[in-house]
Amino acid sequence: MDGPTEGGTPGAARERFRAGLREPTAGWCPGYAQANLVALPRDQAFDFMLFAQRNPKPCPVLDVTDPGAPGTQMAPGADLRTDLPAYRVWEHGRCVAETADVTRHWRDDLVAFLIGCSFTFERALIAAGVPVRHVEQGRNVAMFITSQMCRPAGIFSGPLVVTMRPVPPDRVATAVQVTARYPAMHGAPVHVGNPAALGIGDLSRPDFGDPVAAEDDDVPVFWACGVTPQVALARARPPFAITHAPGHMFITDVSDTAYAI
Amino acid sequence: MDGPTEGGTPGAARERFRAGLREPTAGWCPGYAQANLVALPRDQAFDFMLFAQRNPKPCPVLDVTDPGAPGTQMAPGADLRTDLPAYRVWEHGRCVAETADVTRHWRDDLVAFLIGCSFTFERALIAAGVPVRHVEQGRNVAMFITSQMCRPAGIFSGPLVVTMRPVPPDRVATAVQVTARYPAMHGAPVHVGNPAALGIGDLSRPDFGDPVAAEDDDVPVFWACGVTPQVALARARPPFAITHAPGHMFITDVSDTAYAI
Repeated sequence: MDGPTEGGTPGAARERFRAGLREPTAGWCPGYAQANLVALPRDQAFDFMLFAQRNPKPCPVLDVTDPGAPGTQMAPGADLRTDLPAYRVWEHGRCVAETADVTRHWRDDLVAFLIGCSFTFERALIAAGVPVRHVEQGRNVAMFITSQMCRPAGIFSGPLVVTMRPVPPDRVATAVQVTARYPAMHGAPVHVGNPAALGIGDLSRPDFGDPVAAEDDDVPVFWACGVTPQVALARARPPFAITHAPGHMFITDVSDTAYAI
Repeated sequence: MDGPTEGGTPGAARERFRAGLREPTAGWCPGYAQANLVALPRDQAFDFMLFAQRNPKPCPVLDVTDPGAPGTQMAPGADLRTDLPAYRVWEHGRCVAETADVTRHWRDDLVAFLIGCSFTFERALIAAGVPVRHVEQGRNVAMFITSQMCRPAGIFSGPLVVTMRPVPPDRVATAVQVTARYPAMHGAPVHVGNPAALGIGDLSRPDFGDPVAAEDDDVPVFWACGVTPQVALARARPPFAITHAPGHMFITDVSDTAYAI
């Protein structure tokens, strides 16, 4: 992973993505909030917003655009159609394209939702002495579809998706305390220690992202994940949608500390 | 005010309101969350939800019903059409009726929003040694329309409405700390000390609720208020809406501590 280190600004990162670089954003721009993207036609946007309201752990809404508007106050001047490293285009619940630019797919009736991302609290984890293995290993985070169901809303329903981070046993409590301070970035873990209880069979085979190697007696810790809406999209089959590609987030200009309580 | 004291359950309170008692709910059922009500046709519900998302201080959404459904998981068995002490019925932005029962006004396309209410944190204020003057005086809280504008969303826009509580100077810091723990109930104050800075001319003439007498050198402290949507409704003029009457809240079965962080 050759992402910017401390010196990289969000604007510079977005410029590289706009120019075509496709890379997961884990570890990029430490200190800045990252966000999931879900863009839906206005007709389906109400049901989706209701789904988010009823499932705030996986779907903490940070900003919602006016229909058709490709900008956000979280990064003035940025373009949501070009400034993420990779997108997915959905038709009737099927991912029909994965691309670095969705300008030609954008529609005037699209409402874009920006949803908190757990990459945002990784700087704080590292600062608190909690190693973040996928960043150390230069990989995307590992994501898993669980057997735990979200509260349905209108056309949307589906299982909770989680990120998994292996954490040394003596750092688990710190990891809980640190991430609990970021409720808008999925907050405290939903589960610690037993993948089977979440219906996860094999930690080396994530549903999204990369497998991440645990060290020694690391404990698997699970946080709600902003890919949850993508699984709900696949089930709801709205006529059209655009999302980020898992792990390929929108990097905002907002400081991570703005979301710490 | 003859509201239930510590012994009154939310269910018993709702039963009295259902039977016709019309009284502000300040000081009722200490220990239980209270909520503002806004019910709108589905056609306007998306814009309203967006307004709430963009203005989380005055409009923290606790629950949203499916269209037409008059129940909520915050109080199983309760009926949102009868169980509040008083309602307002709105047509094209005008309040056309204030009534204790909206069963005959309810529509199958109404989406009901329950929004956090600052009455919820008053038990914690009192427990922390912060006197709550309007409860002491047996009155509704004083509410004021400010000169501070909300972020608009779709058809909705308008000024922030606030509640005001006079607080002894040596308790202001405690009042801030205690209420900051309840972000879903409007959280920390938006302003301390200078009504004129909020465009409020005369604290003895509230726009809603009752005037509340300050004692000695009490400082006026202002919290965002769930009546904000009613002022936005009056401006947006949607064809139809139902709200609670200011200060006449829905008392839920949920413990106030469930919303403390």
